Amino acid sequence: MIAVQEKSCMEVDHVVKVVDMGIDTHQESVVYMRKDSPVCQSEGFSASSRLTLKSNGHSLIATLNVVDNHILPEGYAGLSKVAMHDLQIKSGDTVKIHNAPLLNSLSLVRKKIYGHKLSESEIKSIITDISGHHYTDVAIASFLSACAGNRLDVDEIISLTKAMVECGKRLEWPGHLRIFDKHCIGGLPGNRTTPILVSIVSSAGLIIPKTSSRAITSPSGTADTMDTLTNVNLKLEEIRHMVGATDACLVWGGGVSLSPVDDLLIRVERALDLDGEGQMIASVLSKKIAAGSTHAVIDIPVGATAKIRTQDEAEKLASMFTLVGAACGIQLRCLITDGSAPIGYGIGPVEEARDILSVLQCQTDAPQDLRQRSLFLAANLLDMAQANGVATCIDQATEILDSGQAWRQFQRIAKAQGGLKTLPTARFRHIEVADRDGVVTAIDNRRLARVAKLAGAPTDPAAGLRLAASLGEPVTKGQALFTLFSESQGEQDYALAFYRDNGPVFTIGESS
Amino acid sequence: MIAVQEKSCMEVDHVVKVVDMGIDTHQESVVYMRKDSPVCQSEGFSASSRLTLKSNGHSLIATLNVVDNHILPEGYAGLSKVAMHDLQIKSGDTVKIHNAPLLNSLSLVRKKIYGHKLSESEIKSIITDISGHHYTDVAIASFLSACAGNRLDVDEIISLTKAMVECGKRLEWPGHLRIFDKHCIGGLPGNRTTPILVSIVSSAGLIIPKTSSRAITSPSGTADTMDTLTNVNLKLEEIRHMVGATDACLVWGGGVSLSPVDDLLIRVERALDLDGEGQMIASVLSKKIAAGSTHAVIDIPVGATAKIRTQDEAEKLASMFTLVGAACGIQLRCLITDGSAPIGYGIGPVEEARDILSVLQCQTDAPQDLRQRSLFLAANLLDMAQANGVATCIDQATEILDSGQAWRQFQRIAKAQGGLKTLPTARFRHIEVADRDGVVTAIDNRRLARVAKLAGAPTDPAAGLRLAASLGEPVTKGQALFTLFSESQGEQDYALAFYRDNGPVFTIGESS
Repeated sequence: MIAVQEKSCMEVDHVVKVVDMGIDTHQESVVYMRKDSPVCQSEGFSASSRLTLKSNGHSLIATLNVVDNHILPEGYAGLSKVAMHDLQIKSGDTVKIHNAPLLNSLSLVRKKIYGHKLSESEIKSIITDISGHHYTDVAIASFLSACAGNRLDVDEIISLTKAMVECGKRLEWPGHLRIFDKHCIGGLPGNRTTPILVSIVSSAGLIIPKTSSRAITSPSGTADTMDTLTNVNLKLEEIRHMVGATDACLVWGGGVSLSPVDDLLIRVERALDLDGEGQMIASVLSKKIAAGSTHAVIDIPVGATAKIRTQDEAEKLASMFTLVGAACGIQLRCLITDGSAPIGYGIGPVEEARDILSVLQCQTDAPQDLRQRSLFLAANLLDMAQANGVATCIDQATEILDSGQAWRQFQRIAKAQGGLKTLPTARFRHIEVADRDGVVTAIDNRRLARVAKLAGAPTDPAAGLRLAASLGEPVTKGQALFTLFSESQGEQDYALAFYRDNGPVFTIGESS
Repeated sequence: MIAVQEKSCMEVDHVVKVVDMGIDTHQESVVYMRKDSPVCQSEGFSASSRLTLKSNGHSLIATLNVVDNHILPEGYAGLSKVAMHDLQIKSGDTVKIHNAPLLNSLSLVRKKIYGHKLSESEIKSIITDISGHHYTDVAIASFLSACAGNRLDVDEIISLTKAMVECGKRLEWPGHLRIFDKHCIGGLPGNRTTPILVSIVSSAGLIIPKTSSRAITSPSGTADTMDTLTNVNLKLEEIRHMVGATDACLVWGGGVSLSPVDDLLIRVERALDLDGEGQMIASVLSKKIAAGSTHAVIDIPVGATAKIRTQDEAEKLASMFTLVGAACGIQLRCLITDGSAPIGYGIGPVEEARDILSVLQCQTDAPQDLRQRSLFLAANLLDMAQANGVATCIDQATEILDSGQAWRQFQRIAKAQGGLKTLPTARFRHIEVADRDGVVTAIDNRRLARVAKLAGAPTDPAAGLRLAASLGEPVTKGQALFTLFSESQGEQDYALAFYRDNGPVFTIGESS
């Protein structure tokens, strides 16, 4: 009869050689195995199984794609690029493969989907598994969708923030009691105040080692824009050295492994064009806390087509931010600002950089809205540090900007990061004009951002657009509304098709 | 200067030859393209772009995986198996490729995530896009997670049901006014009443063209179990012919394209081990309505470890089912049943089939719980048809079963579907024994189902388990609790490791 097995062992390792498949599957590792491989046959692996791969002390969990036998030599498993990278191996090396352990934390994701509150340890268990690359993109999407739509309460957001901080490095600034920071929750194209404000407040002696993210759902993040102006990819030691010399930096946070799980979440959020409130607060604050910040201003733009649409929503978000910040040891000042129209003229990394330079250089045609908002936010940071009142601090900030001190400080920062770059020019441009006379009575931030993204921003830094008309301004038929920049004809066509087929981006009303 | 482009066109087609990559990526189509291909370069495609592929009147949307140049010949794009299949092409054929259109319905998924109610047309737009294979698995996961946890109201479930029906074929039964059907919402291992009940009620003259699904999160669905007994993969015309001859069938619903979008959703639900209420109601009723059913009983087992845990929850679900059914033109009778322990002895396709045969053949060791429940459900269907009262109908059903009429009818159905199959035997078996004397005071349905799944059910039909101890029975140390069946050592080890490491499946209390 059939043998009765008495003993079980979880670790049934199969040793195979690997071959680099040369396939970019993004951050989700894929292992390709022959249908007839002894591994598949003895373990009963089927398509979409999750497997653990180990080699020389590195390990990861990968999704199985079963391949026809002629694709791979016998005894080999193929790996996607990210798997080759994460295991730090090369073709011909061997890996051990076995069934991936069950992810018990997935039942906690279901618990959240079903509307139950998650405890601190439950959230930590989910985030630890995501951080260990144990979740498929599909499972991350489920977690994010279950948490979005205000489904995390303050306790859960605090837990999420702490769990995210614990998964990465944490900066310390010996000798400095107060470290300043700033964040804008986004949703307002062109609102690129950070480089200006950092230059102003660090001129006044505040320590502001600014780490920024790349765009999530927008055509550019501060890191994308700064990347066109200077090197933003600094190592931790370089940042420490810089801050000692210039009191500030303007770097990409992803390069220093602060809250690295955030990057895994953001990639899926981006695919879903999703940016949930609790997740956003945890994402923002985990980066700030990991960066060692003690004081920060949070810019919350409100407008009909901004990320936050009503004053009421903005106030709730501000109060949530403040509560979570306090529980996690960071003092916040939330500033609710006008989000009715884009700030500045440029949208997309390079075009936003042009606006920043013109404000810092006090050029006469510099966008006044970007200048005023940068001064206001800088003044609030100065006030958090000095408690002189915001009005006095606005005068102080204005003096620093108008005297050229801020521009000199920006140049000093850029030099310390590797020098100022020359801004590139896009290969294709198209001028879109008004189809009638009238007054611009509304600009749809979301659709405008979408046009810039479809043109290639932020992947192509020079892609995006430059506004030629502003809210409230009269235009005549045939007058330019904006110039669209892209690096390929296809993207230009794609962006313009969206612009023309999806409702008005610019509403042109009757001239009064 | 740079040329100003005046005209836009959405359709920038690139024609390439295809090569079959021989990679099984499940239902999500993947297209593999060289980094240096003119298509990638001119269109600015980047990893994870979504592309439309067209060939000979077929089209689909695929995810781009960029590959190193040596992987593919110049001028070729690689396709995964599902993409080759859906486009109905072979290596060397040409396809047209361009950027996939924007999925506006994704903004509706976000609307749902943010807790807003979706209109009938909004739900239809999401389901139409999913049905057209336009959603990535990540986007489907987001939609399912946003809808699970009772987040769809009755109107939305009605809309979802109708939208799902409209995406597939719809059966009609000319000459029959009433078509009967049955469904169990699941969660109770071994609860395989359908084949027995269909044999009984069709013996009594009811028309019951039963289409069943395969397992979603369970170790076996009725279609999985029937597949071990006879051919379940019938075409529409064959079903029509069968029902004319035998008044019944027991086939797999997926083979006849009833509510095909349900299969796309179920695949992702399975990966997430998720089965949301609204989604479940729509899934069940869309299949029933598409099958042309007018009357159905819904079996809702309630138990601490069943899918539905409390009487209150069960009543809410029953009322929701009835409301949605009425709105969609199907009369339902929801029956809340005992879900405290598995039904029958077998769990997994083949082991459940053994139980069915022993009940139909009135064997003395047949599982009495399975027999009683099948009679109860059959009687309720008979009562819906005849309005004689359930008690009378139970007598009628018992007479049909005990006289051998039901078994003869089952054989007639199996013969019409292609003949009775011989049940296979699993390669590996293991007997798990009690570690102490006592009484079985609880059996954890969920963990037991998980053990059977890890052993390979339902993918390997003979995998699963057979209970040797029942709830409330005394056991002695060393006495068999169950036999585990699997087709590989790895799966047996995996299932047993889970059984031993994840809390008690059998609770053995003090003998009283």
